[in-house]
Amino acid sequence: MTDRSRTLHLGLNVLSDGMHPAAWQAPYTDPLGFIRPAQWTHLARVAERGTLDAIFLADIPHLTLDASGSLGKPPLALDPIVLLSTLAGQTTHIGLIGTVSTSFEAPYNVARRFSSLDHLSGGRAAWNVVTTADAAAAANFGDTPHLPREERYARASEFVDVVRALWDSWDDDALLADKSTGRFTRPGAVRPINHRGRFFDVAGPLNLPRSPQGQPVLFQAGGSSGGLDLAARHADAVFTSQATLEDALAYTRDLRRRTAAYGRPEDAVRVMPGLSFVLGGTHAEALARSRELNELAGERRLQNFAWQIGVDVEELAWDRPLPQWLLETQTQSRNAQGARDLVLKLARREPLTVRQLLERVQSWHRLVIGSPEQLATTIEEWFVAGAVDGFNLMPDVEPSGIEAFVDHVVPILRRRGIFRREYRGSTLRDHLGLAVPAVHQREESALS
Amino acid sequence: MTDRSRTLHLGLNVLSDGMHPAAWQAPYTDPLGFIRPAQWTHLARVAERGTLDAIFLADIPHLTLDASGSLGKPPLALDPIVLLSTLAGQTTHIGLIGTVSTSFEAPYNVARRFSSLDHLSGGRAAWNVVTTADAAAAANFGDTPHLPREERYARASEFVDVVRALWDSWDDDALLADKSTGRFTRPGAVRPINHRGRFFDVAGPLNLPRSPQGQPVLFQAGGSSGGLDLAARHADAVFTSQATLEDALAYTRDLRRRTAAYGRPEDAVRVMPGLSFVLGGTHAEALARSRELNELAGERRLQNFAWQIGVDVEELAWDRPLPQWLLETQTQSRNAQGARDLVLKLARREPLTVRQLLERVQSWHRLVIGSPEQLATTIEEWFVAGAVDGFNLMPDVEPSGIEAFVDHVVPILRRRGIFRREYRGSTLRDHLGLAVPAVHQREESALS
Repeated sequence: MTDRSRTLHLGLNVLSDGMHPAAWQAPYTDPLGFIRPAQWTHLARVAERGTLDAIFLADIPHLTLDASGSLGKPPLALDPIVLLSTLAGQTTHIGLIGTVSTSFEAPYNVARRFSSLDHLSGGRAAWNVVTTADAAAAANFGDTPHLPREERYARASEFVDVVRALWDSWDDDALLADKSTGRFTRPGAVRPINHRGRFFDVAGPLNLPRSPQGQPVLFQAGGSSGGLDLAARHADAVFTSQATLEDALAYTRDLRRRTAAYGRPEDAVRVMPGLSFVLGGTHAEALARSRELNELAGERRLQNFAWQIGVDVEELAWDRPLPQWLLETQTQSRNAQGARDLVLKLARREPLTVRQLLERVQSWHRLVIGSPEQLATTIEEWFVAGAVDGFNLMPDVEPSGIEAFVDHVVPILRRRGIFRREYRGSTLRDHLGLAVPAVHQREESALS
Repeated sequence: MTDRSRTLHLGLNVLSDGMHPAAWQAPYTDPLGFIRPAQWTHLARVAERGTLDAIFLADIPHLTLDASGSLGKPPLALDPIVLLSTLAGQTTHIGLIGTVSTSFEAPYNVARRFSSLDHLSGGRAAWNVVTTADAAAAANFGDTPHLPREERYARASEFVDVVRALWDSWDDDALLADKSTGRFTRPGAVRPINHRGRFFDVAGPLNLPRSPQGQPVLFQAGGSSGGLDLAARHADAVFTSQATLEDALAYTRDLRRRTAAYGRPEDAVRVMPGLSFVLGGTHAEALARSRELNELAGERRLQNFAWQIGVDVEELAWDRPLPQWLLETQTQSRNAQGARDLVLKLARREPLTVRQLLERVQSWHRLVIGSPEQLATTIEEWFVAGAVDGFNLMPDVEPSGIEAFVDHVVPILRRRGIFRREYRGSTLRDHLGLAVPAVHQREESALS
């Protein structure tokens, strides 16, 4: 029944507390886990015990307070690179994917940090490229005015070009380290890149050798047309959000087509949408856990949802469908386009009340509330249909959600023959089935 | 004989291969150690076994090739924050000092990274603030033109102001994490900083709580007047370079005076010059090790020295003093001022040949070639005289140099009662005898 030549890919999106808005209030949660080193180490090791491909860290470089100057829940706090670097020294196989925005950094620093992480982790580093839509983040970097979307993507594209050129500024065999002759590198094997572009001038070369993966893996997140093109051109994998199998199939067909248009194999990019879940031993137990969390969150769930889809909370009622004007609108909200698009596509497909919608999606992503068998079946169904190459897992509450997944869902996926029983290789490229790219000498560097 | 109320402070400057220009060619070195995770872990653990205060990572964000496009020795390669974060997860007590230039980063990112490292290491993070004199580094960050020295220090000073304001943007008791009421933070305890300055506009607040040390420790390196003022105003410790006890005494007096002028206790700043060494079981064995390394380096030692003090190699001869015009010049070379000043002060004090100078200084720092007793005696002499609070240790070759220091010099320093036998606390502030600073509410933030 399953195509055994393909392997499912699973990442763990390690959030500060979990995807549920009341995650930190659950009786089985440490609300300060988000700043406790031991909790992060535990999460990474559980994911590695489950032979997951990678852990994934999202990022937003700002903090939004409410009117009273308070914060409602644990923020995305720790710097992803610092956290992943710490975990690199405490794990052996799991991939380490960190989000860094191209809007608030310099390419040389980003190239160097991910290359350093790749060296120190033995080839497990990946950069998730985002441009950061939120203007509140730009206010923390006020010497760089926040660019409109198209400009952000133009900058991101050049940024990635520069980073990849820096990663290729040392040949694989550049290091001689010949003690007797005193020759440390091969002449000409380390080259400046002399990049002069619209957004950046970068001389290079990078100050460290090519890393174990040749180039760290590139993830891309963001479903706009600019994001899709960036993914089709550069990415090894995408973190996307899809509420239904039909939408996922359409997205993947679109991405494959764009990827081929850039001269790459059409299946070069691993497609891994987010998958949120509330697990119980049985369906009834999962519903009970979900109900308990929802009660803790109370009306905040509705407020969050209204904010995510960019409407006033007064426009929504639990047991009514979305207002008709919203279903008919084509206007895209700026700061929450992903969530609104996702929800509207689902709500136009099926006549669901707000309550029902919130049993199907959670914060931008597909939600499954069920038993391990039910969750495994959804995963298998999407995977076998070719709609996805895997998922980025988003447990309701951490660490209990991922513990349950690894202990109860992973064994089912293994029995069904779609997920690995042990790591075959040691690098993230090995796990994702991606080849090590050859050094690509840019024309500028060849001339220098 | 020793003042037992003071404690010596020792850092290990973990270079890629060691301070000697031929370090990587020594028979007892792995020339590729600089990219091997295991070597870095080993170095950090040896330093921790020796109850050193901290390990220290220098940084220069660029790579200089020779005319043939080659590199003569292992570069300062791995990103300091990435490396220290990895080591944070593999050690328990040792402080983690990372160099980051204020010329090529954004304050929000730097504040966040060191705060993250402080959280994940349990309070062991320190930032060594530099401005990076080298224009070759600026060419890797071409959208930010390299500023002249005075401007770099003006930017650095504002940069540090912003970082410290961000570190103070959460009160110590900001986190309520009250599950029953759903209140996560105390109203008003997390504040924007609303900084508007000449170089930076930064809204804040930081997106993570105040870290275990209150603020990560601030080191400062650089001996110019601008650097001294930055240190006097902000630093908890300085990494300086002094060739003689007299120079060290004069430097420390100057720094104490400037520190008091900023309204701080005059001894608020720990003074830790670099100390390079070649150790042997006896003085004769140390001389033999030094001779062997010097033979491996050959004329490169002279070339390095000429480059460091900013003169043509043709101007120098092994067995002659420095040329008279150089001894008389007051002009400061731009890219190598520290080394030239250091050497000229020494050469004016004593009539030394180039060969003799190179037995007394190595790459900007005091050099001792001798037995463990001899090295311990130099350390004690400078410490007891009040010229220093400790040293930043710079072994000739790593890891063998620091292994010898920890195994043979540390026991002598302990017997003499000037160095700890075990860690008394768990944070770097504990080791350095620095109090946790109170939150300082800036006026801007109080108004917001």
